[in-house]
Formats: sequence, C-alpha cells, structure tokens
Amino acid sequence: MLFNYRVIVNILGILLMLNGAFMLTCLPFSMYFKEGDLLAILGAAVITAFAGFLAWVLTRKNLNKELRKRDGYLVVAFGWLTMSFFGSLPYILSGSIPNLTDAFFETLSGFSTTGATILKDIESVNKGILFWRSLTQWIGGMGIIVLTVAILPILGIGGMQLFVAEAPGISPDKLQPRIKETAKRLWFIYLGLTVTETVLLWVGGMTFYDAINHSLTTMATGGFSTKNASIAYYTSPFIQYVIIIFMFLAGTNFTMTYFALHKNFEKVLKNEEFRFYAGVSIFASITVGLVIFGLGHDNLEKSIRDALFQVVSVITTTGYITADYTAWSPFITVLFFVMMFFGASAGSTAGGVKIVRHIILIKNSFLELKRQLHPNAVIPVRFNGKAVSREITYNILAFIMIYIFIFAIGSITMGILGADFDTAIGSVATCLGNIGPGIGEVGPVDNFAGISAPGKWLLAFLMLLGRLELFTVLMLFTPYFWKTN
Amino acid sequence: MLFNYRVIVNILGILLMLNGAFMLTCLPFSMYFKEGDLLAILGAAVITAFAGFLAWVLTRKNLNKELRKRDGYLVVAFGWLTMSFFGSLPYILSGSIPNLTDAFFETLSGFSTTGATILKDIESVNKGILFWRSLTQWIGGMGIIVLTVAILPILGIGGMQLFVAEAPGISPDKLQPRIKETAKRLWFIYLGLTVTETVLLWVGGMTFYDAINHSLTTMATGGFSTKNASIAYYTSPFIQYVIIIFMFLAGTNFTMTYFALHKNFEKVLKNEEFRFYAGVSIFASITVGLVIFGLGHDNLEKSIRDALFQVVSVITTTGYITADYTAWSPFITVLFFVMMFFGASAGSTAGGVKIVRHIILIKNSFLELKRQLHPNAVIPVRFNGKAVSREITYNILAFIMIYIFIFAIGSITMGILGADFDTAIGSVATCLGNIGPGIGEVGPVDNFAGISAPGKWLLAFLMLLGRLELFTVLMLFTPYFWKTN
Repeated sequence: MLFNYRVIVNILGILLMLNGAFMLTCLPFSMYFKEGDLLAILGAAVITAFAGFLAWVLTRKNLNKELRKRDGYLVVAFGWLTMSFFGSLPYILSGSIPNLTDAFFETLSGFSTTGATILKDIESVNKGILFWRSLTQWIGGMGIIVLTVAILPILGIGGMQLFVAEAPGISPDKLQPRIKETAKRLWFIYLGLTVTETVLLWVGGMTFYDAINHSLTTMATGGFSTKNASIAYYTSPFIQYVIIIFMFLAGTNFTMTYFALHKNFEKVLKNEEFRFYAGVSIFASITVGLVIFGLGHDNLEKSIRDALFQVVSVITTTGYITADYTAWSPFITVLFFVMMFFGASAGSTAGGVKIVRHIILIKNSFLELKRQLHPNAVIPVRFNGKAVSREITYNILAFIMIYIFIFAIGSITMGILGADFDTAIGSVATCLGNIGPGIGEVGPVDNFAGISAPGKWLLAFLMLLGRLELFTVLMLFTPYFWKTN
Repeated sequence: MLFNYRVIVNILGILLMLNGAFMLTCLPFSMYFKEGDLLAILGAAVITAFAGFLAWVLTRKNLNKELRKRDGYLVVAFGWLTMSFFGSLPYILSGSIPNLTDAFFETLSGFSTTGATILKDIESVNKGILFWRSLTQWIGGMGIIVLTVAILPILGIGGMQLFVAEAPGISPDKLQPRIKETAKRLWFIYLGLTVTETVLLWVGGMTFYDAINHSLTTMATGGFSTKNASIAYYTSPFIQYVIIIFMFLAGTNFTMTYFALHKNFEKVLKNEEFRFYAGVSIFASITVGLVIFGLGHDNLEKSIRDALFQVVSVITTTGYITADYTAWSPFITVLFFVMMFFGASAGSTAGGVKIVRHIILIKNSFLELKRQLHPNAVIPVRFNGKAVSREITYNILAFIMIYIFIFAIGSITMGILGADFDTAIGSVATCLGNIGPGIGEVGPVDNFAGISAPGKWLLAFLMLLGRLELFTVLMLFTPYFWKTN
C-alpha cells in the first residue's frame, strides 16, 4: 500500500484527544466568570476526546508505526484540518458563532495563527470561549515548532533545511534521535516567554485574564485579542512596548533565542536572517514613524511607537492593531501591503514567506547578473558564510513563485466572489501570510464578517496553505502523490 | 581596457543618424497638413543627424570593430536612451510638449513601445508631430526584433535562448553569420503586416493618415493613438476586429508567422507558447465577455468584442482602448491587473514577462512538488518536447523574481512620490510591462499628465527596464560589470 492509513488515523486520534484535553483548560475561566458557556465547552471537549479515542483505539492493534514521507504530508494537512473541525465545536455548541462556515473560519484562523476574525463584537463573547479562541493560536504555534524542527526538513520544504542546520542539538548525521530533544528545548522557550509576558502585562495593568490571552496570541504570532479595539484599547505605553518586544521575539528564530539564553550572543548577531529581520523592522519603523510624525499623527514618541507596533505586528504576521495604518497615507498602505509578503524568521511561529527565503532570493538575483557575465563559473549563494546548494536555492525560488501564483489566483477568485480590488488582494495577502487584518474592507479596523461564505472557505484554505508552507498541502493535489512510481 | 568605448560611440552615432533620417519621414505629413510643425521637425532631424555624424566621424579612424559582451550591454541601454533624448526634440522644438520631463517620458514611452501618454488633448497636436509619436513606437519595435534575434541570446537573458532555438535560419552551431538573414526576414514580416493593416484600416473607413498611424503602433504593440478616445473613437466593428487580429499577430512570435506564411502550420500549432498564448487570450475574452454581458454592458457581440479587444490589448501589451475595463466590475479590474504581468510571446514586439517564461515557471513549480517526492531523480522542465537546461530554468526564475522585486520597490517609491495605492501599483505594472494604460488615476480613460515629475522619470526608467528585459539595464548597476575579474 502507498500509504499507512492506520498509523495516520492513529496519530489524528492522539491529536484529537490532546485537543479535547486543551479544551478542558478553558473550564476554570468558564467557572470563574460564570457566563454560561461551561456545558458547551465541556460537551465539545468530551465529543472531541471521544472521537479521538475511537480513532486511536480502533487502529492501535498490531499497528505498524512506520511513518513514511507520503504519510507525513497526510498527517500534517489532515492534522490541522481535523483539529480545526473539532475545534469549532465550542463556538457552535455555545452559540457564540452558530454557523459552521464562520466557526470553522475562526478556528482555522486560530490554529493557523492567522488572527483574521469574523466576530464583530468580541467583548460580548463569553470569556471561556474567548480563552479557547486564544488557546487555538497558542496550540497552533506549538504545532508549528514541531513542524519546522521535525517534519518540514524531512519533507524537503524550501529553505527549512537551512534552519535545521542551525538548530541546537541537531547534527545532520543523526537527525532523528535528537529531534525530540530539540523540540522540547524550543517548547520550553515558547512556554517560558509566554509566562514572562503574562506577568509583565499583568504588572503593566491588564487583568490576569487579558494578560494570559494576549500572551498566548502574541507568542503564536496570532493576534487574536479579547478587545474589539485590539491593543489600541490599552493606552499604556508600557503594555504596548512589552507586546512589541514579545512579538519581535515570537518572530525570531527560536534557536537564536536559545543561543541568547546561553549567552552565545555572537552566534545571534552573526546570523544573517536575524540581522536582516532586526534591520528591516527598525528601518521600516523609523521611516513610517517619521512620515506619520511629519503628517501630524501625534508627538514623536507616539508616532514612532505606533509605527514600531504596526511594522513589527505585520512583519511578524501577528496582526495586533494599535492604529489604522491604512488611514495614514497611501504610501504607507502600499508599504504595509508589501510587508505582508515578508514574514519573519524561519524557526519562529511567524507565517508568510520568511526572511531567509527573501535573503536567498535577493542574493541569487544579483548573482544571476554576475553569472551572465561569467557563464562558465559556478557562483553559489552564500548564507551565514556557507554555500547553499543549488537544489535548495531552486526549491526556494519555486516556493516563492508558487506563493505569488496562489496570491494571484486567490485574488482573482475573491474578485469573482464579489470583493472589490483592495479587499480581494488585501484579504488574500493577509490570510496566505497568516497575518490577520488586511487592507480594503478587511482593514485594521474592520473584520471578515462581511466576506461571502465561499470567500470565507477560500480564505480558510489559504490560511492552511500558508501555514503549512504551501508544498505540504499542494502535494495532496498532484497526481504524483497518489500513485506509485 | 574593459570596454571598447570608441565602437560604442560609433554605433550610437549611426543610430542617431538613422533617427534623424526617420524624422524626415514626418515631413510629408507636415507639408500636407500645413500646421506649422515643419521647421521644428526639420530642425530636430538636422540636430539629431549632425550629433550622430559627429559621434561617428570622430571615432571611425582605426576603429576596432570587435564588440564584446560587456560592450553589448552599454550599446543596448545607451542606444535606447540616446534615441529617446534626441527623439524628444520634435516635441520640444515644436512646443507640443515644451518641458523636457514630459517630452522625454512621451518619447521613451514611444521607443519602448509602451504607449503611456502625458498628452491630455492628443487631437490638438500637429499631425507631423503625431506621426513622429507613432513612428517612435514602430522604430522601437524594429529595435526589439534585432534585440531578441541577435543580442539577448548572446547576453544570455533568461528564456531568449529558447526562442532562438526555434528561429528560422539559426542553427546553434553557426549562429553569427545567419543572424542578419533572420533579422531581415522578421523585419520583412513586420513591414508586410504594417502595410497590410494600413490598407485594411483605410478600406474600413479610417483616413489614410489615421490608418498608417494606427498600423505603426499596432505592430509595435505600442498603443499610441491619434484620437483622444483611442480606438473607441471608431465604432466600426470591422476596424476593431482588424485591430484585434493585428494586435494578436504583433504579439505572436514572428518566427511562427514566418512558418505560417510558409504553410508550415503544424509547427505553429505544436508550439507550446503559441497554444498557451492563443488559449489564454480566447479563454479570458470569453469569460470577461460573458461577465459583462451578464452585467448588462451591451449586446452579446459587442460585449465579446469589447472583452476580446481589451484582453488582447493588455496581453499583447499594446494598450489601445475601446472601453474602460476598470469600470466593468471589481473582479475584472483585478483580472486585468494580473494580465498586465502576462506579456505575449517572446520573439514578438510585446513587452512584459512573456508567456514562455510563465510556462517554464508553472511547469517547474509543479515539477518541484514531484522532485520533493523523488529527491534523487533528475526531473527537467520540458518545453516544445525538449528538456530545458537547469541553467535556463534558473535564469527564468531569477528574471521573474527580479521583475516582481522591481514592481514592489517601484510601487512603494511611487507611493512615496504621492500616488494613491491603485495608481502606484497600476502605473508601475503598466510601465514595467510596456502596456500603456493602468488602473487608478492612470486608468484606461486617463493619462499620465497628473504624475509628478520624479514619478515620470521613475516610470520612464521602468519602461526602459521592462523593454530591455531587465538584466540588460540592471547589469550596468552591478559592481561586477565595471571591474575586470
């Protein structure tokens, strides 16, 4: 058989049981706030865990645990999908989001760490359900860490090999046995940063509930907020600066954070991706800050802070809002639109194209000019001082091409489904890049409630595509995948 | 010495003398219409030819005629620039376009076969000058034929090798001696089609003057019209259909036309680029036609005709207008925006990315998924039944990447210079793709008069970049180019 379906179903079962267990962590908030969502969440948890248990128990006998490459694709794509379908249950059962399209959109927006929302009045939703909403993003972020460390490099997704080569504890010759160890280390950092941010936000004046919710969605670069006005609700500069710093950390390769925690700062500062990431964030923030200060936005500190917040929010694909950047000036709208295609570091929880790919792309483009002058010379791209193999460079170029291709097809389809020009390109760019708010009618101060049902399903599909680095999902649509060779 | 500057100046001199001679062909129209532009054109011709003569005569003694690869880049880029600077003289001397920025923009828009205009009232301009305006496009088209046949393949510009492999009379082993022959054949087709279209348009009811002007700008896929309303001025379906057919032919690889004229239809119908080009044009036209018919645009024939006209006009990068496609529906605006990145066939006079590159790109993207499943297999892209070398595929990917990169940087810069979002991306896409009209404030029923002076210089630079297949111009900005290695 081409696929080991039983082990795939078995793993999906385990994931669903975990999903059910996660739902239970919402119960303390349900009980504390007493808003009547207790039974819905409990019901959803029981159904989810039971479905998972069934899948697991029916496949566990004489299970061949060998997971081959092709099985890997199915596990990843269906893992995210199954989690999202069952993850919609709390919304549906509690009546917070009664219809499936909207509930699924919101849940996948969570698990994919996108942060696009169909909720018009977030603050009217019960606190237990809102906690689940934030938690989906945090779970998604955990999933991404496993994915980048353990799965994508094996599947050969463009550029991810470059990340793994740098990951602590992983030596190319004995990859398998140490992956668990690496994943644990990175999870520990993820958890540690979440707790630290929660404390800081609490100290800064948020309620404990809001502090934990925002920490969960910051570290996942998700961007779901418990407030209608997102972070603009909190006027405290301290809170905003804390969130800026933790968004930036969430978009940093977790391996770099690991090195920094072990005082290996040289390694961090020499890392090309980190330098580029920090450089672009600072440069864009200062430019935007000075422009809006010049336009009379506010005093210099507030202008720079708003610029910094929005630039870091978009580059890290978080999507929190402190100010409506589409209202600043047309130039800034274009700039933010372009930044939606950046993505932060590989090996972080950020979505999008990722900066490592842009670096390889830009370097390769310039070298192509050199190659034309010297057609017989072998001129490889160098990254962090090492030559990148032609296969990887090639794969990265193909990745970016497919990304743009999907963006174009997606925009046209959204147009066919009735979106205007700005909304079409804005919604596709922001969902494919797992950011959250876009431009047009899905801009920073709007939401996705007005998008048609087919449009929501399309955007949900794009979130999944973007989150799983395209190839993982697209593979399932090729004829090669489904036949032996 | 790294460059043979003397032979470069010598060639530029010859080009300027030819440019002066071409200006003289406007005189009959000046004399016939007696609108007072005779002296201006004569003066411009004399100055241009004299400058060319000086450059030629001062460099002709003991001239080393060897033109190396590096010299080739300089000749191409400065050839187009010099032609455009001197080509502005008729506008400036006659007072039709008194300032240099506008005159240079209009002339480069001509020589690059773009068709973007700063003229608000075309019909008020003297007929001799308008003929010069149309002629610049036709000359630009001639230049492009030489460029694609003789120069780009030698410079190794992505994908052009694929075209040459198909060109009649060119065998890879003895390229040099037969290039002249091939260029002559293709020029003959270019001239023949121009004359045929002139006759048909004249028969169809245009004045002889309008017929010849529109033929010159159709065959160059330029799109300058002598009417303010462009082709919408002519309500005759016959005229519109004639122009549709000749736009399509101008965007067809001239080698295919050569084969068709020699009754070798099999070769044409088997050519992948031609099939894709024809297929996309027809499919997009019917889709758009049915949509606007459904929206109540007009009767079915007129809806299909308007759709066909605008689709072919944009895909071939001509830029004539019979209807304002940005007013049809948001979806259609998005579709036309995306089509601005298509470009027609390589080996035609069309600008833009070119369909051959898209074919290689799309095929390679899908094969990359296959390569991931079979990492050790060598899986090349096949085009017209032959395997395309990895170097060429790589080069094409780099080309498209740089195209998009320039589009992004260009749009941001236009935004900084004050353009709104639609205008910024629309003007950059249309100028880089050598189309003409864009979206936003430079849409089908508008013009480029309202763009700021720095914006006009930027767009002019983008026209040049796009027309010369990017690499030719960008090369001059690399350090590699200016130093020995």
